[in-house]
Amino acid sequence: MNAIDIAILGASGYTGAELVRFLANHPRFNIEALTADRKAGHSMSAVYPQLAHLKLPELVTIEQVNWDELAACFCCLPHATTQEVLAKVPAHVRIVDLSADFRLEDVAAYAKWYGHEHFAPDLQKEAVYGLTEINRSEIQAARLVANPGCYPTCSLLPLIPLAEAGLIEEDDIVIDAKSGVSGAGRAAKEGSLFCEVTEGIHPYGVAAHRHVAEIDQELSRAAGHAVTASFTAHLMPMSRGMLASIYVRTKDGATAADLRDVLEKSYADEPFVKILPPGGIPQTRHVRGSNLCVIGLADDRIQGRVLIFSAIDNLVKGASGQALQNMNLMFGLSETMGLDLVPMFP
Amino acid sequence: MNAIDIAILGASGYTGAELVRFLANHPRFNIEALTADRKAGHSMSAVYPQLAHLKLPELVTIEQVNWDELAACFCCLPHATTQEVLAKVPAHVRIVDLSADFRLEDVAAYAKWYGHEHFAPDLQKEAVYGLTEINRSEIQAARLVANPGCYPTCSLLPLIPLAEAGLIEEDDIVIDAKSGVSGAGRAAKEGSLFCEVTEGIHPYGVAAHRHVAEIDQELSRAAGHAVTASFTAHLMPMSRGMLASIYVRTKDGATAADLRDVLEKSYADEPFVKILPPGGIPQTRHVRGSNLCVIGLADDRIQGRVLIFSAIDNLVKGASGQALQNMNLMFGLSETMGLDLVPMFP
Amino acid sequence: MNAIDIAILGASGYTGAELVRFLANHPRFNIEALTADRKAGHSMSAVYPQLAHLKLPELVTIEQVNWDELAACFCCLPHATTQEVLAKVPAHVRIVDLSADFRLEDVAAYAKWYGHEHFAPDLQKEAVYGLTEINRSEIQAARLVANPGCYPTCSLLPLIPLAEAGLIEEDDIVIDAKSGVSGAGRAAKEGSLFCEVTEGIHPYGVAAHRHVAEIDQELSRAAGHAVTASFTAHLMPMSRGMLASIYVRTKDGATAADLRDVLEKSYADEPFVKILPPGGIPQTRHVRGSNLCVIGLADDRIQGRVLIFSAIDNLVKGASGQALQNMNLMFGLSETMGLDLVPMFP
Amino acid sequence: MNAIDIAILGASGYTGAELVRFLANHPRFNIEALTADRKAGHSMSAVYPQLAHLKLPELVTIEQVNWDELAACFCCLPHATTQEVLAKVPAHVRIVDLSADFRLEDVAAYAKWYGHEHFAPDLQKEAVYGLTEINRSEIQAARLVANPGCYPTCSLLPLIPLAEAGLIEEDDIVIDAKSGVSGAGRAAKEGSLFCEVTEGIHPYGVAAHRHVAEIDQELSRAAGHAVTASFTAHLMPMSRGMLASIYVRTKDGATAADLRDVLEKSYADEPFVKILPPGGIPQTRHVRGSNLCVIGLADDRIQGRVLIFSAIDNLVKGASGQALQNMNLMFGLSETMGLDLVPMFP
Repeated sequence: MNAIDIAILGASGYTGAELVRFLANHPRFNIEALTADRKAGHSMSAVYPQLAHLKLPELVTIEQVNWDELAACFCCLPHATTQEVLAKVPAHVRIVDLSADFRLEDVAAYAKWYGHEHFAPDLQKEAVYGLTEINRSEIQAARLVANPGCYPTCSLLPLIPLAEAGLIEEDDIVIDAKSGVSGAGRAAKEGSLFCEVTEGIHPYGVAAHRHVAEIDQELSRAAGHAVTASFTAHLMPMSRGMLASIYVRTKDGATAADLRDVLEKSYADEPFVKILPPGGIPQTRHVRGSNLCVIGLADDRIQGRVLIFSAIDNLVKGASGQALQNMNLMFGLSETMGLDLVPMFP
Repeated sequence: MNAIDIAILGASGYTGAELVRFLANHPRFNIEALTADRKAGHSMSAVYPQLAHLKLPELVTIEQVNWDELAACFCCLPHATTQEVLAKVPAHVRIVDLSADFRLEDVAAYAKWYGHEHFAPDLQKEAVYGLTEINRSEIQAARLVANPGCYPTCSLLPLIPLAEAGLIEEDDIVIDAKSGVSGAGRAAKEGSLFCEVTEGIHPYGVAAHRHVAEIDQELSRAAGHAVTASFTAHLMPMSRGMLASIYVRTKDGATAADLRDVLEKSYADEPFVKILPPGGIPQTRHVRGSNLCVIGLADDRIQGRVLIFSAIDNLVKGASGQALQNMNLMFGLSETMGLDLVPMFP
Repeated sequence: MNAIDIAILGASGYTGAELVRFLANHPRFNIEALTADRKAGHSMSAVYPQLAHLKLPELVTIEQVNWDELAACFCCLPHATTQEVLAKVPAHVRIVDLSADFRLEDVAAYAKWYGHEHFAPDLQKEAVYGLTEINRSEIQAARLVANPGCYPTCSLLPLIPLAEAGLIEEDDIVIDAKSGVSGAGRAAKEGSLFCEVTEGIHPYGVAAHRHVAEIDQELSRAAGHAVTASFTAHLMPMSRGMLASIYVRTKDGATAADLRDVLEKSYADEPFVKILPPGGIPQTRHVRGSNLCVIGLADDRIQGRVLIFSAIDNLVKGASGQALQNMNLMFGLSETMGLDLVPMFP
Repeated sequence: MNAIDIAILGASGYTGAELVRFLANHPRFNIEALTADRKAGHSMSAVYPQLAHLKLPELVTIEQVNWDELAACFCCLPHATTQEVLAKVPAHVRIVDLSADFRLEDVAAYAKWYGHEHFAPDLQKEAVYGLTEINRSEIQAARLVANPGCYPTCSLLPLIPLAEAGLIEEDDIVIDAKSGVSGAGRAAKEGSLFCEVTEGIHPYGVAAHRHVAEIDQELSRAAGHAVTASFTAHLMPMSRGMLASIYVRTKDGATAADLRDVLEKSYADEPFVKILPPGGIPQTRHVRGSNLCVIGLADDRIQGRVLIFSAIDNLVKGASGQALQNMNLMFGLSETMGLDLVPMFP
């Protein structure tokens, strides 16, 4: 079969390198172009020696991309820049955007959370929120998919079916989320230094993390009315992995078993979402390097309260893996193509 | 001044080694005996080479201890064993017990949580719960102090003054706690292996962690009625440090500023408890190796909800440091004696 | 094409789990049996939850294996036990043994290093040392392949071609090797605990590490006379990865460029061994999770001395990956089958 | 007794913060000024929250320092800047300089290794190399002490007495050294990011690390003739700690026992240098946070070769701890003042 030529814009970050890892053995997508403005002219192996044994195009600037050759692109550029770049991409090119730039339907909400007007409000209108398991049919038909943030992916996969089923009190959702450092990207920042991160934990972006805008938007859609979740992010001394510990009150005496039942039905045929049996507790180690989301539930000691634990690899299901899952879907391929990765442990 | 001769029972664990670290430069307490049944006959430096430059007595069995020479002891033995051993300690010896064996006033509660009848119910009656800043006068007069668990210490220091002040809804307290691995001790268990702990996080003891019995007991005392907290422990890929992220609803429109005000007043003169100003966020790295507890508060996005973060070193304020603080108090010494440790970072 | 049915003996250790990871997507080998005496009756997913989404046979005892159904087996049993078990495996079953039990040709050498007589001296005679790139033709024809140790693999891949070429002084080879903790396996030992390994480094097995017997044996074969290398192992605070820093004196004024030339020629067509260009420095991160060995060379400041750095993943090229590479070879399959793994970074 | 007022120049780096940690409880030295040009006007606690409970002067620029009030200063500025700044410090102020700017006696060697002419050649003449145990009498009388680098300290403490005793072949010294990341300082560099450092190891500065100039200089002095050591640095996935694995050939059949004998005699009365008995193997964990250097020796399998392992905390004996030890010495105080720190483990 013919190869489908694609580009990765902003390939020098961790999410770009992850896409290359998945695409290296992909039977249909062919990496035709890799861009990285500041690294243009260098080989990808100079930036990521672990990819040196692969045959990859040289890094170029976005201006050097020949769009005529391309059927699609993954966009791993920083926010704001993304809006400016994607507004100029020709209409025949389908896009999965890993930035936050097209995740919020309401451009006013975007302006509030990101501190500037939306630079591509027209493009926003055609963007589809790319939580694959939830928005599958819309994604399939979309030209532009806004790939969800890692925290929203990890939190929404368990919460949306429960909110839709009306089983939880939507005004009493507490999400305590923990992420590996790779979520902060490869930028050289004091806060991401080894010595500043190892052997410790701390919350960050307290009551102000931008990802909550996505969580609220999608929970509200699922519940059918405005929902505000209590969300707190914590930085973990590890590269990869994300755990959301979610504390909910149930309606009408529903128990963990009832909630598990809903999730099992919702995700029964999903290759990447696994609901654990009673007593099962997810660890981020159990999904490392894979596109899996593993969810466990337990009754709290307090009647009417249920504990939900959701684990993903923030760089895979939380970013590049879901992006490829979406792109597969958009091109009518099996969603698991290139993503049949067994978690790596230890 | 005369030295006060003390023993450390069960000195071969991490909490025993920490006590030695603090006592090495203590002006008044003299380590007269170190016990470790399975390591008896060995030097402490064979078990902990980092202590090799100190002059320390050889490890002996508990039977070899000459109680006549001793004024006090720290007990770092496992639970159940502790009750049997301490029941036989002569009455002139004052005790700080680091196990869980005497923390629950109600021996029936003990039996429920620990799976066997209490072996020393009479001794239980004279035990005092050793949260220093809260129970100071009782501790001072006590013969037997039950040193609090690490999770209770970290959670109760912020919560007790708030519960006493009636500022929070006691039936809606969610504690998401994260601990370093050293809390599991030095026992060779698969779950504590490097490969099983590093680069990942997971909850454990879900809805069944024994420390909640202490938390409930002390919160109930503070509130004046029965309180059950929602508590979940997580294992972190780090040796030391504990963070409790506490999610509360306030009463009567109280805000983070109101709660901070209460805590600042409660702990204004405390050398070891620090309340951060608005915007301040604790990291476990900021207390590593010290007896400090640092607490920060913030208003949630949801009105009427406040986020409280409390950080300690689980081996210090959460174990051996508070134990020494209590022993200092019991002997009329400055609580900071031997504990003027500056946190080590990086 | 027909599936080739194989068993993994001792599947509950890390090397067994790694084999499952590689075989999950292998087009020809089918896992017909998994043994783990102490875990028999359990599912593999109970022991390794990260494998829960795979269809795998239940764990059984070795006695329960139906050898008639099998064409081959991987043996991940501990040493000594391995000799006893493999001596009873029917002759039609081809074996790749990951233990040290058949690596030393000289059974007297085995007895000296492992402290007991060899239990299967006849079987030893047909064993082939499984360093794939060096012994390819012998391995292809072998019934029993002794898969090399991780330290020998990492050290010998650069050294054997140089010794064969007569370019280095064989009596002045210093190997300073560093390994991740997974090399110690999943056994619950104090020395492998998180707190005992993290944030530190130390040498171990000083002047007495058993792997040197293999290194000496193979270097002697390559050099054509008895060679004893100076070898020291260090334990690293990481799960995976191995680096050998090798210090050699060259003959006849040979430089790093001369040595690189020899290695480039030796490994020009090898899919898994990569020689870096001048200035290239290997990191263990660049091979993590893959079957690659990456080698870099540099002239020392001292004339006539060359520095050689060799990096592998100890669980892959140093264990299970090379084992599969060998098994592929033995069955006439492409050596890369199931092993086209892109290194995972970060 | 009167306080001795001192300043720390460049207090916002890790070595500055370590000095504050040691001086917090120092009976004689009083921190009168802390400089940090880019952070001037901020409190030290804004830069290092772990120091928030200490009473410290606000950060100022170097220009704001009132030298009349000061008896001494520690200089933690970057190289080159240091020469310019220290050349202007009034003559009554005694200095311990933690940079590399005054460590090389030969200004031509400095120019070669650091890429520019020495900016303060006159000041260089009065600088004393501050390896305390080796140069004690010169340090005591010095105005300007050039505090040694971490790698030289770790390597030279075992090697100098052996070179002086003529027990080792000086032209065959191989030093394989491993360091924690804190040695790279707090600068935001890609290579020091958590994701780039954790779970891996690699050599760096191969055959070109600037610290070898110091090692050569001091080994040559000890041997009485020019010595060039083979030295390779490796970056470890840990914050603190340094291990030098040193491979030597001995003269006249000397064994590890002979070498140990020399070191034991050299350091018999030293509070900070400990020679382990036969079989003793140092771990960096055993010195963490302390000013100790622990050294172990073993005979190699190859006759005439000895393995030497030397462990320090790179930020303490390798930097700020030795700096304070030197300052104590310069002011006639006990060298251990403020440095009686028990290593922190775990």
